[in-house]
Amino acid sequence: MGMMGSSLASAVQRTWPETWIESVVRSESSAAFIKEFRLANAVQVHTDVRAIQDFDLQSFDLVVLGIPPAKIIEMVPHLPITQTLITDMSSTRRQVHAAFDQRPAIHFIGSHPMCGSEKQGPQAAQADLFHDKLCLLIENPSSAATTVDLQLLRRFWSGLGMLLYTMSSGMHDEVLAYLSHAPHLISSLLTLWAGSNQHVASASKLSPIPISGGGFKSMSRIAGSNPEMWNDVLQTNRDHILGSLQEFHSQLGRLIQLIQDPESGHDWQSWFQKSRQERDQLCNWD
Amino acid sequence: MGMMGSSLASAVQRTWPETWIESVVRSESSAAFIKEFRLANAVQVHTDVRAIQDFDLQSFDLVVLGIPPAKIIEMVPHLPITQTLITDMSSTRRQVHAAFDQRPAIHFIGSHPMCGSEKQGPQAAQADLFHDKLCLLIENPSSAATTVDLQLLRRFWSGLGMLLYTMSSGMHDEVLAYLSHAPHLISSLLTLWAGSNQHVASASKLSPIPISGGGFKSMSRIAGSNPEMWNDVLQTNRDHILGSLQEFHSQLGRLIQLIQDPESGHDWQSWFQKSRQERDQLCNWD
Repeated sequence: MGMMGSSLASAVQRTWPETWIESVVRSESSAAFIKEFRLANAVQVHTDVRAIQDFDLQSFDLVVLGIPPAKIIEMVPHLPITQTLITDMSSTRRQVHAAFDQRPAIHFIGSHPMCGSEKQGPQAAQADLFHDKLCLLIENPSSAATTVDLQLLRRFWSGLGMLLYTMSSGMHDEVLAYLSHAPHLISSLLTLWAGSNQHVASASKLSPIPISGGGFKSMSRIAGSNPEMWNDVLQTNRDHILGSLQEFHSQLGRLIQLIQDPESGHDWQSWFQKSRQERDQLCNWD
Repeated sequence: MGMMGSSLASAVQRTWPETWIESVVRSESSAAFIKEFRLANAVQVHTDVRAIQDFDLQSFDLVVLGIPPAKIIEMVPHLPITQTLITDMSSTRRQVHAAFDQRPAIHFIGSHPMCGSEKQGPQAAQADLFHDKLCLLIENPSSAATTVDLQLLRRFWSGLGMLLYTMSSGMHDEVLAYLSHAPHLISSLLTLWAGSNQHVASASKLSPIPISGGGFKSMSRIAGSNPEMWNDVLQTNRDHILGSLQEFHSQLGRLIQLIQDPESGHDWQSWFQKSRQERDQLCNWD
């Protein structure tokens, strides 16, 4: 249990106080924290995903894999076959689902709760992390999961206050490349680009407080958050991230041409207005 | 007085309640709002910047021009010459200072208070807008402004809780292209780019709440804010905005090449970590 898993445990405890929660973490310090703050009824420390083969999954109603896609893919061949529903919280989907396609007897339905924090570890747990957020559900056509399993999963996330939307794994990875993955890379590039200008770097050091205003701060908030997770996202959704960034690169090239040519007659006020409308539609901004 | 000017009036009223404030606005509705909420002691409505020639500026301690750079440039030739210190709140500097260079008898020192809101008009006034924010001071070497004027201006902004940093107009425009102007354009392009993908547009319409998570929302917050102002920023800092965007475009091209080649051996975890360090340095993130 990292930040996401610990937040989930807190949310479950708050919503269904009688639930028995067993947690797996990678470090003794996380385990100590979880015990101290009673985020779970039991804690085990494992660094090897193969440890899953010795778990009695059948005794649980639901198993949530709160580990990166690459770790899930490593784990899937070792999952014992039971009737227990398994879900996950991965930010990329196709590779995870391809791994479960090889084990159709497992009851698996994918979840991508769209919430998070730039902070890591169980210390960053927030019980209300899931409330009023979107959870994308991704069914595996080849999985043994039943409609009863799907109802259970819908009740689980809804019970924590999440709104649900179902997508295919392919559609998920394309849409999320635009709305999450590529923007993270752009945010990270933004800080490296600004810092690479010598005048920006010197003035920023000399100024009593940062020269970057609220706009730059907002845009760079997610820069470099959780390097391990984002490395994984990049490795597991490379094609769509690449395609979306190439599209952004080409649209930026056209924008530069319009700025370069003062005679272009481009209506910048309309352009800014259109971008605001698009922002409001995509983000439901109020 | 728009959002900035009205916020300034409120801040002055709070800090120095005895101050006599005269306000100029462009619309009767803004004037009515300012009168109703007593944001100033007197209000005049003018749409033509030449109206400034009939003002008795000598009777004021300080005149703050809270209008776009292009309007200031239009106004400068009509400013009456007095001993009164004039400042402004422009986001771009060189063209404003070039205009004042033609009127060296005017006591002018430039100010760029680094604060704002994506909302417009006096209705968006916030009395604490300036508190704990940075004000960039830009001296005009050719201006008649004295060290007494500079002390007055420093006391004025400091009194409102601002921290001060002095720059040349050229350095200002280059550094701000990176830390404010180009990021605004990138934020605006981000929403247009995401919305131009058909799957993103359809899924966003069908989902019960926006699919874009907190990251995209942060990054697009400033998209299209105040189209008139940003149009003006673009027109008055075109060269530095262009140069910084071209640099971003080329760095993005290199990033795409690294993603494209899985054999590049690029250390993405270090890259994400470095971008986070840069973010923390530029934004003083805690």
